[in-house]
Amino acid sequence: MCEGNEDKTPPEVFAIRENASPPNSAGWMLRVVPNKFPALSVEGHLNRQGEGLYDKMNGVGAHEVVIETPKHDETLSTLPVDKVAMVLRAYRERIVDLTRDERVRHILVFKNHGAAAGASLEHSHSQIIALPIVPKRVSEEIVGARAYYEYKERCVFCDIIHQEIEYGARVIRENNGAIALAPFASRFPFETWILPKEHSAHFSHTQSTLFQDVASLLSETLRGIDNTLPRAAYNFMLHTNNTDGKGEASYHWHIEIIPKLTKIAGFEWGTGFYINPTPPEDAAKYLREALPREDPGNRT
Amino acid sequence: MCEGNEDKTPPEVFAIRENASPPNSAGWMLRVVPNKFPALSVEGHLNRQGEGLYDKMNGVGAHEVVIETPKHDETLSTLPVDKVAMVLRAYRERIVDLTRDERVRHILVFKNHGAAAGASLEHSHSQIIALPIVPKRVSEEIVGARAYYEYKERCVFCDIIHQEIEYGARVIRENNGAIALAPFASRFPFETWILPKEHSAHFSHTQSTLFQDVASLLSETLRGIDNTLPRAAYNFMLHTNNTDGKGEASYHWHIEIIPKLTKIAGFEWGTGFYINPTPPEDAAKYLREALPREDPGNRT
Repeated sequence: MCEGNEDKTPPEVFAIRENASPPNSAGWMLRVVPNKFPALSVEGHLNRQGEGLYDKMNGVGAHEVVIETPKHDETLSTLPVDKVAMVLRAYRERIVDLTRDERVRHILVFKNHGAAAGASLEHSHSQIIALPIVPKRVSEEIVGARAYYEYKERCVFCDIIHQEIEYGARVIRENNGAIALAPFASRFPFETWILPKEHSAHFSHTQSTLFQDVASLLSETLRGIDNTLPRAAYNFMLHTNNTDGKGEASYHWHIEIIPKLTKIAGFEWGTGFYINPTPPEDAAKYLREALPREDPGNRT
Repeated sequence: MCEGNEDKTPPEVFAIRENASPPNSAGWMLRVVPNKFPALSVEGHLNRQGEGLYDKMNGVGAHEVVIETPKHDETLSTLPVDKVAMVLRAYRERIVDLTRDERVRHILVFKNHGAAAGASLEHSHSQIIALPIVPKRVSEEIVGARAYYEYKERCVFCDIIHQEIEYGARVIRENNGAIALAPFASRFPFETWILPKEHSAHFSHTQSTLFQDVASLLSETLRGIDNTLPRAAYNFMLHTNNTDGKGEASYHWHIEIIPKLTKIAGFEWGTGFYINPTPPEDAAKYLREALPREDPGNRT
């Protein structure tokens, strides 16, 4: 994935380049390429069918890799905030493009950092998967948020942000546009959510100025995690609305970061519940103390 | 947990002893003791309450440890089948007893074997948790089975068994009373389910003769996994009906075994879907070839 090795990846589908250098050559700051070993393939038909009482379909969709930096030894937590904002803008560009494929129902962006989090390559990268069905976990969250909206006529995430700012103990940091918090009854030690403070269902509708605020919190949180838990592996997942645009009023995009410190065992597999030895109030306190100094110009 | 160290565990709540030796002394084949570090405590009230838009309650229930053998170097896969059947009978005794507590809604039995599966102690043991709420995953399965029953007036697990026996490729082994199979679209490599062939919703209603058949398949499967994947860590979870007894016609108890070979990463956390590099048809074939020889007296 390093600069100079452009011919060792599939041809890029998107790149940010400094000097209008030609595609698939050196001179880039960020590249997006199809995954060499895709979980879903772009060609083909879904071909939904039954097999007795089971259902099956082909794995049609897209699986792309966002190479976040040309340098092998940089990570999202060492990149300058501007470069992290660039990564978020690349996500948006790819989501907008992949949404044009009518077979695509949901687009998931995620990152595996460190071997314990499932990363098989060291070079800093994230992944984009465009899926022909709405995934189980996404559906649970979107349907749950809709049920809350039908009852209250308010977005549950907006309500969470309001309550957390008032309560304070689980807020890790906020700036003009975004907030980082340790969610109530978090599943994992140091689980962190980053949300835009203004209601917004689709990540792809987000303005670039907001990306700067989200990037700033993402960068600070990852540095805080690095400081508190040296060399911790983590995953993050971008939770955004489905491509169908329903749930505009009730859903609210956000990033969920989960450091990999505990093992998923029989209790978790059997219940879907998680035992978390570090309460979110403690995690938020540790992270607040471990965060890099705030840019005073960026404070609410 | 070894024989002779009975005073180092909390006092036993159940034991199987050869010579009517007194409780909490040597001379046992199996002991059940409260967990020293319980996830839920037996004393106290649930005290359900709101905290703004969140809900909370106390962790009331029970958390017990089944010490499956007095010998430190034995495991479920090296124990004779009779001893494995004894472990299953101990699960039943404890489930029956814990069900008497009216606060208990569901009882989960599970086992973590090996560090990668979350086991913190080497001595062969399993765990029993009595929960004051129905866990998410249990509820999904019980509700799903009920929806199928309402549509078909048949148990979905009975239908699965019927289809799998007819198809054959995913059957690992069957005997008079039980069947071991690699489930269709399995989540994990070598995931294995063991089910009683006759419909039965509650593990605790199972007759001891059937336990012998289930124990035989459990023992054989674990030895097959040991032969195919030396020293693999695994979890197993007993899926049984809630204590309320609803779902008698639609639910069907079973044991799910998942060897720990793949990492749960961003894709899985983001979707609730699992990418499995070993199709169940291949896993069943490998396991059939790796199983210990069949006892001809025990074949259907």
